[in-house]
Amino acid sequence: MTTKIANQEVSKLNFIGRITTPYQDIAACPNNITRDGPLCSIELDLEYQQGLIGLNVGDSVLILYWLAGADRQVKVHGNDSEAKGTFALRTPNRPNPIGAAILEIVGLSDSGVALRGLDCLNGTPLLDIKPAIMQELK
Amino acid sequence: MTTKIANQEVSKLNFIGRITTPYQDIAACPNNITRDGPLCSIELDLEYQQGLIGLNVGDSVLILYWLAGADRQVKVHGNDSEAKGTFALRTPNRPNPIGAAILEIVGLSDSGVALRGLDCLNGTPLLDIKPAIMQELK
Repeated sequence: MTTKIANQEVSKLNFIGRITTPYQDIAACPNNITRDGPLCSIELDLEYQQGLIGLNVGDSVLILYWLAGADRQVKVHGNDSEAKGTFALRTPNRPNPIGAAILEIVGLSDSGVALRGLDCLNGTPLLDIKPAIMQELK
Repeated sequence: MTTKIANQEVSKLNFIGRITTPYQDIAACPNNITRDGPLCSIELDLEYQQGLIGLNVGDSVLILYWLAGADRQVKVHGNDSEAKGTFALRTPNRPNPIGAAILEIVGLSDSGVALRGLDCLNGTPLLDIKPAIMQELK
């Protein structure tokens, strides 16, 4: 699962489904998730659909997705007194461009879930869905 | 960044630092993060340390880390009426074994951050740190 290439350790991700949103290009994407935003859906690839057993409408889940096309080299954004590091920002331009959103499931089928307010491009690859836990909801 | 291997699309992650926890083997790890748990620390690799600019003690951040050694094939856990899908559980055994925790920064240095209550093995590879946002904190 983990290999060492040159001096850098890397691991591989599998894309397990796709996210449908209203946003067809980056300029149209909102800056962040919005709990009451437009309806979005996640369709899992066939081999992963069984993994949905036990989820219910109303559950809060953490969605992880892959922000393809990000600039993975940039470490600091802005300049001088305005400069902020990647880890102090939600920018997609980061070493591992994984998007994260905690949202409530508003619909459920055998093959996927519906939720409101994701901020990513239509067609974004899905990495994971997991229950949000108390510590995350403060 | 994204390649197509056989029929499966994959993307590569870079490990950007290491997490220090009190847990030297899997059996010792707690089942979940605990906000008031033991002191843990994250040390970033040198090339990523600049990315910390703008973070402060007291900030809530989402930490993403790589759960090496997970079984990535299992889709359903338990059996019959007790069965639950991977996506309804926080188990590390999932298609993309990315651990996630939202915690408060309790200490900060030029090379990393300190926080309490991470649930992962000592030496776990770090994938990302990003500010937790209002929607996640409900």
